[in-house]
Amino acid sequence: MKNETLTRVISALFLLAYFIFAVQYTGLYFLPLYLFGYLFLYLGIKEFYTISKTEEGRAFSGFGQLIAFIIYNMFYVKFLLIQTKTPKPDILSSFVGLELDVFFFALIMLTVLGSLLLQIIKRPADGAIFSVSTTLFGILYIALPLGHFLLLMGYTNSLYYIWLVCGITMWTDTGGYFGGRFFGRHPTGLKISPKKTYEGYVTGVICAILYVFALNFVWEQFFHEKTPVVGIEGVLFSIFISLVTVVGDLAESAVKRDAKVKDSASVIPGHGGVLDRIDSLVFTIPVSYYYIKFKSLLGFFI
Amino acid sequence: MKNETLTRVISALFLLAYFIFAVQYTGLYFLPLYLFGYLFLYLGIKEFYTISKTEEGRAFSGFGQLIAFIIYNMFYVKFLLIQTKTPKPDILSSFVGLELDVFFFALIMLTVLGSLLLQIIKRPADGAIFSVSTTLFGILYIALPLGHFLLLMGYTNSLYYIWLVCGITMWTDTGGYFGGRFFGRHPTGLKISPKKTYEGYVTGVICAILYVFALNFVWEQFFHEKTPVVGIEGVLFSIFISLVTVVGDLAESAVKRDAKVKDSASVIPGHGGVLDRIDSLVFTIPVSYYYIKFKSLLGFFI
Repeated sequence: MKNETLTRVISALFLLAYFIFAVQYTGLYFLPLYLFGYLFLYLGIKEFYTISKTEEGRAFSGFGQLIAFIIYNMFYVKFLLIQTKTPKPDILSSFVGLELDVFFFALIMLTVLGSLLLQIIKRPADGAIFSVSTTLFGILYIALPLGHFLLLMGYTNSLYYIWLVCGITMWTDTGGYFGGRFFGRHPTGLKISPKKTYEGYVTGVICAILYVFALNFVWEQFFHEKTPVVGIEGVLFSIFISLVTVVGDLAESAVKRDAKVKDSASVIPGHGGVLDRIDSLVFTIPVSYYYIKFKSLLGFFI
Repeated sequence: MKNETLTRVISALFLLAYFIFAVQYTGLYFLPLYLFGYLFLYLGIKEFYTISKTEEGRAFSGFGQLIAFIIYNMFYVKFLLIQTKTPKPDILSSFVGLELDVFFFALIMLTVLGSLLLQIIKRPADGAIFSVSTTLFGILYIALPLGHFLLLMGYTNSLYYIWLVCGITMWTDTGGYFGGRFFGRHPTGLKISPKKTYEGYVTGVICAILYVFALNFVWEQFFHEKTPVVGIEGVLFSIFISLVTVVGDLAESAVKRDAKVKDSASVIPGHGGVLDRIDSLVFTIPVSYYYIKFKSLLGFFI
C-alpha cells in the first residue's frame, strides 16, 4: 500500500514536471506541448475504444485514431495562427484565410461516411449503429477537448488560465476526496456514484475557491501581472468550474459502469488510465475556453 | 397493388412539386426552402432515434432535436450570408465576422456534455455509451447533411447543382432497381444487401451518366447558360456520385438491419420513411458541395 502511494506520487510529480515544461516552452513551434497533448489524445481514445467494446459492436479504432489525429493537427494549426508568443511559421501564411468550419464539417462528414463504409465492407450489419456511433463519440469526447486545450494555450494569458482551470479541477477532485473521507455523512444518492457525499462536494468547491485566491495572490506577487479572474468573478468562476468538474467525473463513471470496468486502463503507474486523469478536464477546459472567449467578445480584459 | 403504386406516384409528384417550388422561390428569406429542409431534418432524426432504440439504451431525443435545430439554423444563417439571390437581412450584418467554427465546436461540446449530464441525472449507467453516442450520431448523420443542402443552395448556380446531384442520386437508384429486375444475374454477395446484382449497379451508373448529358442539354437549350459540369468531367462526376449513392443506400440498410426494421417509418404514403428517401442524399449532397468548393478554390468555373 505504501509502495503504491509512492508510485502515485512519483508518477504524478514526473507528469507535473513535464507538463510545466511543455506549457512554458515556446521553441520548436511548441513541440513538447504538441506531443504532450497528442499522447493523451492517442491513449485516451484507445482506452475509450477498448472499454466501449461489446459483443455486438466496437468502434473502428484505426479510422477513429486517424480522424482524431487530423482534427488535433487542425487545432494545432489554428493555435499557431492565434498565439503571439513565437513567430508563425511561413508555411502557415496560406492557411490564414482558411475556413476552418468548412474543413471541420468536411472531416465530420468524412467520419460518418467512412465508418459506415467500413461497416458495410468489413462487418455484418449487427452492431452497425453502436460501432459507427462510438467511433464518432470517441473522437468528439476526447479529440475536441484536447483541441480546445491548444486553443486555450493560444490566449495571451494562457499560462494563467492553464493554472487556473487545471488547479480548480484538481482541487475540486482532491478536496472532494478528502472532504468525503473526513466529513462525509450525507450521500447524494446519485445512481452513478452512490457513495459520494454532499460534504465531499462542498469541501471540493471550497478548496477550489481558496486555490483561486492563492493563485491570484502568487501571480500578482511574483509576476506583477494583473490577473483577469478576480474577486467575486473568481468565486463564481471557481464554483462553476467545480460543478463542471463533478459532471465530468460522473460522466466518466457512467461510461465505466456501463462498460463494467473499474479503471479505464493502467497506463499511468498508480493512477489508472489516461481517461481517469482527464475525465474532468475534457469538460472544464472547453467550458473555460468559451467563458473567456465570451468575455473577450463583450470587451472585457482577458 | 395497383392502388399502392398510385399512392406512390401521387405522393412523389406532390413532393417533387413542392421541392421545385421551394428551391426556386427566393422571397421571405427562402422560408419554403427552410421549412422543407427542417421537416426532413425533424422527421429524419425522429426516425433514427426511434429505430435505433434497444433494450439497453436509447438516444436523448428531445435534446438531440434541440441541438439539431440550432445547427440547422446556424447553417441557414451562413446560407443567407453567402447566397446572392436576395438581399441579406440587416439583422445578419452582426454575424458577418462570426467565427462559425468556434460556434460549431461549442455546440458539439455542449452536446457531448449535455447528453452525458442527462444520462447521469435521468438514467442508470447501463447503456450510457450507446445512448450518448447515438444522440450525437443522429445529429451528425442527418442535421449536418441537411445543413450542407442549404450551403449547396448558396452557390450561384445552385439550381443547376440541385438538379445535377438529386438527379444522379435518383437515377442511380431507379436505374439500379429496374436494371437489377430485368438483367440481374450476378449477385454482389455483400452481407448487407445480398440480393443486389452487378448488372443493377451498372445500369444505375449508366442511367446517371445519360441523365447528366440530358440535363446539360436541356439547361443550355432552355436557359442559355453555360453548365459547369460537362464532358468527361460530367461522366466522372456522375460515376463518382453514383458510387456515393450506393454507399448511402447500403449504409442505411446496415442501420435498418441492425435495428431489425424494414422501413425507417411509414410517414410518406407509399414510400416508407423519410430516412429511406434521403439515405443517399445525406452523402451525395455534402460530397458534391465539397467537390464544387474544391473546384472553386482551384479557380475553376463553378
